Amino acid sequence: MGSEKTFHMTPEEFRRHGHAVVDWIADYYARIESYPVLSRAEPGQIRASLPADPPAKGEPFPAILADVEKLILPGVTHWQSPNFYAYFPSNASGPAILGDLLSSGLGVQGMLWATSPACTELETHMLDWLVHMLGLPQKFLSTSSGGGVIQDTASSASLCALLAARERATNFASNQRGCDGKLVAYTSSQAHSSLEKGAQIAGIGRNNLRLIEVDETFAMRPEALARRVEQDYRAGLVPFFVCATVGTTSSNAIDPVPAIARICGEHKLWLHVDAAMSGTAALCPEFRHTHAGLELADSYCFNPHKWMFTNFDCDCFYVADRKALIQTLSVLPEYLRNKATETGAVIDYRDWQIPLGRRFRALKLWFVIRHYGVEGLQHHIRQHVAWAQKFADWVRKDDRFELAAPVPLNLVCFRHRGGDEINQSLMDRLNRSGDLYLTHTRLNERLTLRLCVGQTNTTARHVEKAWKRIQQEAAK
Amino acid sequence: MGSEKTFHMTPEEFRRHGHAVVDWIADYYARIESYPVLSRAEPGQIRASLPADPPAKGEPFPAILADVEKLILPGVTHWQSPNFYAYFPSNASGPAILGDLLSSGLGVQGMLWATSPACTELETHMLDWLVHMLGLPQKFLSTSSGGGVIQDTASSASLCALLAARERATNFASNQRGCDGKLVAYTSSQAHSSLEKGAQIAGIGRNNLRLIEVDETFAMRPEALARRVEQDYRAGLVPFFVCATVGTTSSNAIDPVPAIARICGEHKLWLHVDAAMSGTAALCPEFRHTHAGLELADSYCFNPHKWMFTNFDCDCFYVADRKALIQTLSVLPEYLRNKATETGAVIDYRDWQIPLGRRFRALKLWFVIRHYGVEGLQHHIRQHVAWAQKFADWVRKDDRFELAAPVPLNLVCFRHRGGDEINQSLMDRLNRSGDLYLTHTRLNERLTLRLCVGQTNTTARHVEKAWKRIQQEAAK
Repeated sequence: MGSEKTFHMTPEEFRRHGHAVVDWIADYYARIESYPVLSRAEPGQIRASLPADPPAKGEPFPAILADVEKLILPGVTHWQSPNFYAYFPSNASGPAILGDLLSSGLGVQGMLWATSPACTELETHMLDWLVHMLGLPQKFLSTSSGGGVIQDTASSASLCALLAARERATNFASNQRGCDGKLVAYTSSQAHSSLEKGAQIAGIGRNNLRLIEVDETFAMRPEALARRVEQDYRAGLVPFFVCATVGTTSSNAIDPVPAIARICGEHKLWLHVDAAMSGTAALCPEFRHTHAGLELADSYCFNPHKWMFTNFDCDCFYVADRKALIQTLSVLPEYLRNKATETGAVIDYRDWQIPLGRRFRALKLWFVIRHYGVEGLQHHIRQHVAWAQKFADWVRKDDRFELAAPVPLNLVCFRHRGGDEINQSLMDRLNRSGDLYLTHTRLNERLTLRLCVGQTNTTARHVEKAWKRIQQEAAK
Repeated sequence: MGSEKTFHMTPEEFRRHGHAVVDWIADYYARIESYPVLSRAEPGQIRASLPADPPAKGEPFPAILADVEKLILPGVTHWQSPNFYAYFPSNASGPAILGDLLSSGLGVQGMLWATSPACTELETHMLDWLVHMLGLPQKFLSTSSGGGVIQDTASSASLCALLAARERATNFASNQRGCDGKLVAYTSSQAHSSLEKGAQIAGIGRNNLRLIEVDETFAMRPEALARRVEQDYRAGLVPFFVCATVGTTSSNAIDPVPAIARICGEHKLWLHVDAAMSGTAALCPEFRHTHAGLELADSYCFNPHKWMFTNFDCDCFYVADRKALIQTLSVLPEYLRNKATETGAVIDYRDWQIPLGRRFRALKLWFVIRHYGVEGLQHHIRQHVAWAQKFADWVRKDDRFELAAPVPLNLVCFRHRGGDEINQSLMDRLNRSGDLYLTHTRLNERLTLRLCVGQTNTTARHVEKAWKRIQQEAAK
């Protein structure tokens, strides 16, 4: 049978090299503030430092790890730096990293219940825990007609919601016909770009996604939605789906879900609520008002991988009725048949998502919830909101600056009163300095700076320093 | 600004607990053969052992890790056991686990080049390395009109191929109209179920996906494809996409890509080649004949997370011309605009995939290629193929059994001559024994056992033992 020569890493080698990687990460976090937050690499610089050809022979592990430090780190933007205020955060934390490490180590596929029952059951259990932790409607519990599943991103969750809605509206799967170009979906002009992408992917077409106008707080105008829906019906089209946003990416605007839900109810439109970033705030009872109307939604998602200290990827997606979702995404070839699936006693999450395969992502969520406890999670979310509110106060009190949008939670949209060029230059200089990293958007056609207080390791001291640096640069 | 009380794990705590998790994984691999491969958990058993409510207060890390052992492990099917022969493997390896750990530790988002240049550039570099390593056509290099990207799964790769093909056929994105129900896609009746799912998701409809008949080796009949395409044209439909499979999931059948490509060329149909499992074999020049005709394909994918010792998720997807793919998947809102993107000098991989966010998956691929070297990877692939061929010989020589399909690489489809009931019972008893895990398919309407030799840690001794156990059970 040939030699038993092996190139695999033995368990003892893994132990040794694994300790070295853990130490590297611990050291990385201890010194993370010493790096410029935004990478200073030029296009092509990192590639140019890598050998053109793959190695013919294996290399010792310490050499590989040394190259991470030398070749990769200069091209890293430090998303885990406490001075990261850009986009929305994509948080890691100790327990999440270690839960994810265990997932890699176990290396199980959770496509079917049968391929690792714990992978499915822990996920269902965590998603049910989160219903209680966030005060979500009971219909999202797995013990009801609905249930939750971990998706990679809110983009995929929106797409799944679109597909389930399409199914409910047209019996797409059993008709087995392609789309007919008549389905129309709705969201606000401030909704995430993934809605346009999803409409495109699902064959709805971007032109059949209506971007409804917003009010002065950048929230969807329900009366504009109602008007547009009526108009589309009159034109012989088939309205079927509305996505409301709780916390838009641009400015954290919160759509009026109760009013939108009434319109959806009247016309039997599927209502998806995207709370990718802001959903986590509902851990604290005092912020749950942002979820008003959710009991009328057909689906909902929020991302623990943004603000709940759980490594990417981890989006929690809930449906009130799992039937349409499964109907449209289930294909059961012979090689996946098994007794557990056929008895119907189990959940097969492959039927709740776009891909077939899936890793054991519930482990990191379990680790995070148990490490922090509800109390610990609430504490840090409250801190982030308090500091963002404090920052907003400072902006209000500085004559040179103005707030560009309401600050319901932890995102502050603000600008220098001097106009777009000054704001662009201010942002560029701050980001180039390496001291902090913030990004921009456009609100009312004006360049606006966004500062999101939500990175795991950000503390009061960092937010104070950020404001000082902004003031300093503005004074130049 | 409130207290600086924290619930986060400090770097020093992370170091301590991280070592414990690494040790747990090293020990797990050292004792992995002591577990029954297929979990014996009953539906609901794992959930029943978990507390109904989330913890109000945080818990010490060692208690969490102890629960992995006590509560989770009984519900794990051991995909990393050397006695795992089911489905296709989903391989982990030491270097891949540690590369993935670093990815979790760095916690960067690679949605845009600018959000971590190293994440994008290392990925491009690895995908280019793999073009050389597998002898793929030069047009798949990033330096040509095409390029490669890491997708989560081959399902997502097929979907992206479908979308790019739809774009090329209809200018879908700029037309901005929905699908019109006329587009028709083709694959073989033995192709992966993800094609049906993809056609459904993309609004093509399952009925507009033709499942072309196969020959006695379960490979697509090109003449049947040609006939069906002509017929659809005559019916006023719009053929646009063909997926050929190099190594089907059922039986490892290899579609005749050169003949299929000629038909695609004649009618300008997009040709996608799905080599999710078998592509890895092309690391060895002697198996590259399976890729004949690939120079005529528009897109291609294979999964290092199956057979190339790289943890899930890691599917390598290539396109010959990136234009259509990017056109259909790109949406650029203000909050993602940046100078690097606008100069066009960089790749933004968010435009090459369904989700927006993406983790640093190239690290594990880099670690694997450097740890093994081309030589080490080739060695293990050759061993797996040799042992599968040996196993096929044993089947041929045992009068009670027969091969159910050709064995081009490392998957053996075989059955007891006694009929479906005997095969079902044989498989059930073997899997219940915990000594090994194999799954089934149906070929020519008969239950067929599948044994795939491809798990990272499988050696000659394991394959010999598997055959002995099969013979023992058959003798009962």
